[in-house]
This record gives sequence, C-alpha cells and structure tokens, in this order.
Amino acid sequence: MSRVITLLTDFGYESYFVPSMKGVILNINPNATIVDITHAIPQFNIFKAAFTLWASYKYFPRGTIHVVVVDPGVGTSRRALVIKTRNYYFVGPDNGVLMMAAEDDGIEDIRSIENRSYMRPVVSSTFHGRDVFAPVAAYISLGLDISLLGPRVTDPIKLPIPPNTVSKGFARSSIIYIDHFGNAYTGVRSSDVTIMGLGYGDTLRITVPRKNLEIEARFLRSYGFAKEGETLALINSEGFLELSVNRGSFASRYGIEEGDEVVISIVK
Amino acid sequence: MSRVITLLTDFGYESYFVPSMKGVILNINPNATIVDITHAIPQFNIFKAAFTLWASYKYFPRGTIHVVVVDPGVGTSRRALVIKTRNYYFVGPDNGVLMMAAEDDGIEDIRSIENRSYMRPVVSSTFHGRDVFAPVAAYISLGLDISLLGPRVTDPIKLPIPPNTVSKGFARSSIIYIDHFGNAYTGVRSSDVTIMGLGYGDTLRITVPRKNLEIEARFLRSYGFAKEGETLALINSEGFLELSVNRGSFASRYGIEEGDEVVISIVK
Amino acid sequence: MSRVITLLTDFGYESYFVPSMKGVILNINPNATIVDITHAIPQFNIFKAAFTLWASYKYFPRGTIHVVVVDPGVGTSRRALVIKTRNYYFVGPDNGVLMMAAEDDGIEDIRSIENRSYMRPVVSSTFHGRDVFAPVAAYISLGLDISLLGPRVTDPIKLPIPPNTVSKGFARSSIIYIDHFGNAYTGVRSSDVTIMGLGYGDTLRITVPRKNLEIEARFLRSYGFAKEGETLALINSEGFLELSVNRGSFASRYGIEEGDEVVISIVK
Repeated sequence: MSRVITLLTDFGYESYFVPSMKGVILNINPNATIVDITHAIPQFNIFKAAFTLWASYKYFPRGTIHVVVVDPGVGTSRRALVIKTRNYYFVGPDNGVLMMAAEDDGIEDIRSIENRSYMRPVVSSTFHGRDVFAPVAAYISLGLDISLLGPRVTDPIKLPIPPNTVSKGFARSSIIYIDHFGNAYTGVRSSDVTIMGLGYGDTLRITVPRKNLEIEARFLRSYGFAKEGETLALINSEGFLELSVNRGSFASRYGIEEGDEVVISIVK
Repeated sequence: MSRVITLLTDFGYESYFVPSMKGVILNINPNATIVDITHAIPQFNIFKAAFTLWASYKYFPRGTIHVVVVDPGVGTSRRALVIKTRNYYFVGPDNGVLMMAAEDDGIEDIRSIENRSYMRPVVSSTFHGRDVFAPVAAYISLGLDISLLGPRVTDPIKLPIPPNTVSKGFARSSIIYIDHFGNAYTGVRSSDVTIMGLGYGDTLRITVPRKNLEIEARFLRSYGFAKEGETLALINSEGFLELSVNRGSFASRYGIEEGDEVVISIVK
Repeated sequence: MSRVITLLTDFGYESYFVPSMKGVILNINPNATIVDITHAIPQFNIFKAAFTLWASYKYFPRGTIHVVVVDPGVGTSRRALVIKTRNYYFVGPDNGVLMMAAEDDGIEDIRSIENRSYMRPVVSSTFHGRDVFAPVAAYISLGLDISLLGPRVTDPIKLPIPPNTVSKGFARSSIIYIDHFGNAYTGVRSSDVTIMGLGYGDTLRITVPRKNLEIEARFLRSYGFAKEGETLALINSEGFLELSVNRGSFASRYGIEEGDEVVISIVK
C-alpha cells in the first residue's frame, strides 16, 4: 500500500478543520504521508475542486488515497463514497467532485460508506471530513478491503461537462479554470487545436459575449515569447488552450470569470 | 514517543518564519512528522489561537507535541513554557494561549524553559519560535525529560472565559469564534441547549446589542436542511450552538464579529 | 543523503501546481520529506524569493535539496540549474533566485540541467516545476551524481545587491524585505550598527525620500519594550536593522514599500 493520503477541501487555511482531519489520520495510521492538494477551493465550488483533483491526482504514487471534502450537503441524505480506480482510491461526498478524476483513471468499484466501524465513534452532522472521510482514508491506507465499507454504488452523481464546438479556424468553448496567475483555460484541447489548424505565430480573435469584448492574441509556445504585458494564447501544461498576459493577469485585465463563454477564430 | 509536532502561529504563509522553524526541528529530529495547525491566526489574537488549538489538539496521536507561537511579548520577561498533560505536550509563551487545551486534557507538569542547552546557540530577541520553541519541541520528540528544561511553574497566565447565562427558553452569551465559512459559534454548549429546551424545528430570536439587530433562525440538524440563503442555528461539530446561513456567510450578512454579545430566546 | 526537499514558489496555495510537484517527487522517492518554504511569493518577485530562501535554507539538515520556482522565463532559452554548495543542493531557473543563498553557503559546482533522462517523459513549455525541477530534486535525493545532469556552468546570473553607505551616526540604505507583520528590514547589518555607534535607547531619524517622510524611532531590544503603537527600530533575527511598530504595521502606517530608499541618522 502507498502511505500517501491527499486532502482537497474548501476549508481554508485559518480554521481547525484541516489539522483535525490530519490528527485523525495520524492517530489511525502514524506512517501516513499526508499531502495537501489545496484547501482554498472557493466555498462549495464543486467544479473547481473536481478540475484541481483531475489536474494533480495522476502524479502521485500508485495506491495514493485522494480525499475531497467540498460538501454543501453534509449531514443530509447525500451519500459518502469510496471509488477504487485502476491506480488510486478517491474518498468524498457523492456530488460529482470525485468523478472527473476517477473516470479519467478508470473506475473499478464504487462503495457507499455506511459501516460505522470505520468512522469516528460519534459522527457530527456538519464535519464528515473529520468524522467519516479522514478515518476511512486512514483505514484504506492500512489495507482495508473497501467492500467492507458498504454496498456497491452504480449511479454516482456526475458533473455536467461544458460543451465545445470546434472546426477549421474556429472554436466555441468556455473558460473552465482560472489559475493563480490569472491565466484562463478554455475547454479547447490540444487535439482541437490541430483540428482548428492553429500554428505558432498565428493571431486569434477571442470574443467574450458576456463582456461584449473582442481580444486579439498571438498563439505562442510559452509566456516568455510574448512582450511584457502582451496578450497571448498557448497550449498549457494540462493540454488546454490558455489565454494569458505575459507577466500580467488575463482574468483581471479583461474581467473574465470561470464559466464565461468564448468564441475563438484564427484571424491570420 | 510520538514523532508528531504541530505548529500553530500568527506568522502567515508568505514569510520565512515557519519553514525556519521546520528546518530547526528536522535538523534535531529528522524523523519528526510536522503538521501545520494554521499560521493564519490574526496577528496577536491569543484567544483565537487558544480556541483553534483546543478544537484540534485532541485528534492527534498520544504524545504529540503542540507548539504555539502567538507571542506579542517576545524578548521581554514573559516566560516560555512547556506543559505536560495527560496525553500531550504543549510548548509556547506564557500568555494563556496554551491553557484552554492543556486544562482540557489535564495538566500534569508545567516548566519554565530556561536551560540554554536546548535552545539554538544564539537566541534572537524577536524569533523565539525558531530559537527556543522549535528546538525544545524537537528535543522533547527525542525523549527529553522536561524537568531538565527549567523550574516548575505554578502560576501560568490564563485567559478570561466569556460568561454565559442559560435558562429555560433563554441564553445570554457571546460569539467566541467565526470560522472560514462565516459561521458564528456562540458560547452556548449542547448541554446548555438541553437546559434551554430547544428542539429541531424551533425558531430562535437572536439579538445582537452592538449592532442593534434582531435575527430569526430555525434550529436544524445541518446546513443542508435549510433553504439556500436561509439563516439557521445548529449544534456544530465542536458542541457549540452555531449561527449560520446555508451556502452563505452569517458573519458577513449581519456584520457580526468575535466578541459580540448575543441574547437568544426560543420564539416558537 | 538527506531525504528533505523544500519547495519555494510563486504558485499560490489554491492551484494544482504545488501538489503536482509533490506527487512527482513522491513517485520517484516515496521516502522524501517535503517541506514548503512558501508558495506566496508575489508573482515573479525574484528578489523576495531569493531573500526568503537565504533566510531559511541554513536551518535545514545537511544535504537538503532546495527547489525554487519563480520563473517568468519558463519555456524560453533560460537555463535550468542545479547548484551544489558546501551543505546543500539548490535547484531552479538561472535568473539569480538561487544565488544569494548558494553563495552564502559556498558554491562547489553548478550544472545546467539538460539530460532528459531525469525529467518527466513529456516536458511542457510552461510548467518546468513539475516536469524538470521536481523530478531532478527527487533523483538527487536518491543520490544522483549531479555531473550527469549536464555541463558545468561558470556564469550564473546574479541579482544586483542594493548598496549601503554607513558611517558614524549615519546610514543610507533601502528597504530589502517587508515581513508578515509589516516590519521593514533595512539593508543595514548589525556590524553596520556598531560602525554607526548606535546603542539601546538612542533615537533615530529615518527619512524616506520617495514619501517625503521623516520618522523618529527609538532603538530597542525587542517589540515589547516599546509602547503599544510606538514606532521602534531593532536588530532583528536575521541581523538587519528593522523598522517596526509595536503591535502594528510599520509598512502600512507609513506606506513603505520594498525598494524604498531610507536615510538614517542618530538624533540623540
């Protein structure tokens, strides 16, 4: 078994929530290696958590247990899930947050966590991260057979995937992620860029209907090939067409938000 | 010995303070497992640090050493303490920040840290986290007998505890903690809620004299039982009566701050 | 070999960048101990990253591998470096960010990272932290001979050092660092303070030409010797003359920024 357990939450860094989860894990498995994915997911932003998990889960050692707690339905009848995939385990609420990564890796089994033997003795109504998800992850890291946790689940909730339209010289998509530097990831993949026929040095026109905005950007290999302050587009490290400002913030300059529709065409 | 050492400070995440402490610890005990409680305590907010420690210390393995550095009196004559409790060690300044947790676990011995053999060779006047508390914690994790650190202390400084008044249908208390989501914890405990005779579905009236404000809130089991945007009250994971807005921030909506007095009555 | 690898970036805490690097490291060396220096360096602020590294690197166990990714030139022809010093390894871009610490410890060998065997199989143009620096650090932690990484470098880029002028009763310097509490570090060292003839209790006049500002401050041993809200100066834990407000923020009160010139004289 890997002894790596990752944590991804919207709990922030200033409260006692995250260290309480870590204490529970270390109490059950003192040899666990706990890694923070992030705890700064905007409150209840399930899509952003799902994308962040998808972008990072695959770099961890085989057998790593990924715990996600972005959980507006805590304490209601929403299910708690463990998903076993080809290489990993995923633990979290049944609200779609685990599925983008789990389906990417290949799902082998999904269980509803119902066996109280693997939870804390008293389960609060508001903090399943500490009382359910943390202990379950710790027991899995000790080798627990997940079929003991509860019945098989065949209908997990999935997130809707924003649609893309791509053709020669054209793409209609949306902003799926804005990163720490204000770079805006469109849903256009590198394979789509091939369909579009886009080449380094080409200029793109990006229309953002919500902002009634037209932006021109050169398609380049990396930030440093643009002038300081120049708007550019590139294929980023996750394989998406990204809109950027060299040494600046694309999102701030243009007031772009996650979810914004974008229409992209090759100008020259 | 547990090899877990936790750190709780108001040092923030952007400076070199916290990693310097971690380096010092790992230099003395390369096998220590260091866990951050938080470093985002508001500057010099001793009560918030004390509550955060109290809420999280107890989930860690027996023998864990909890280090707290919220220390406006650094370099003056304030004492540096090690407290041995039934299950843990606490290390930090003598300003009350350790006592809420230490008394909760049961104090067995308190020592004033004076033996320079267990400090860094040169002790700065402004960074005892690195030069005193970190090395002392690391040596304790290696099995140091704390009686070697200095003389016994019998008069540690304690924090004043905000008073509560509770009777049938009524409570007068204050906001003792506001969490990452803007939930406001009153000082009313679940045992007080029994005295009040409060039951799920009841409606509370909460008066906040400082804001000249009256708020109505249903008492429910968890956030998800309220409508989106509805104000509610619940018993939270720490056993306090908490005021909340489902998928919103109670503190922001009503301008509530830690320390605010609240008067609570059952309306129906 | 030490199994400690530290990470210092401007990637923030909310994105998937940092955990992806940690996953890559743990995949190569599951026994690595990863410590965050900080990920909150202001975007592309190479000097602040260099200072933060300098202030913390030396407390870590001998053999620690310090990875820094503040890298506006990623994907261009800027070199990627490994520096072996007397006690440590430093890994990062060739833009000066490693040199303040590396020269302080004593440089023994510098290599340009060019051998693709020690990078991820596909190297993106925009995320060398994950694809180059993280795997190289992990392989070094397993004992890799750094001469296998690439050719020797004899002309690494260095940062300009802000000049100081010091004489009896006088210093002309600049603000080199502002910490989490708003304390402003001048470039004046404790040895300069001896030249100035400054003693505890003396009063300093600090002139800030950019702000057209004159500030008076007593020179004291630590914050707590000043009255609450009083402006003071002290020798801080890193050996610099620091300007401070007891229980307040010097930087906020006076609008001081890193890089500001300061002229300091002893008044009485």
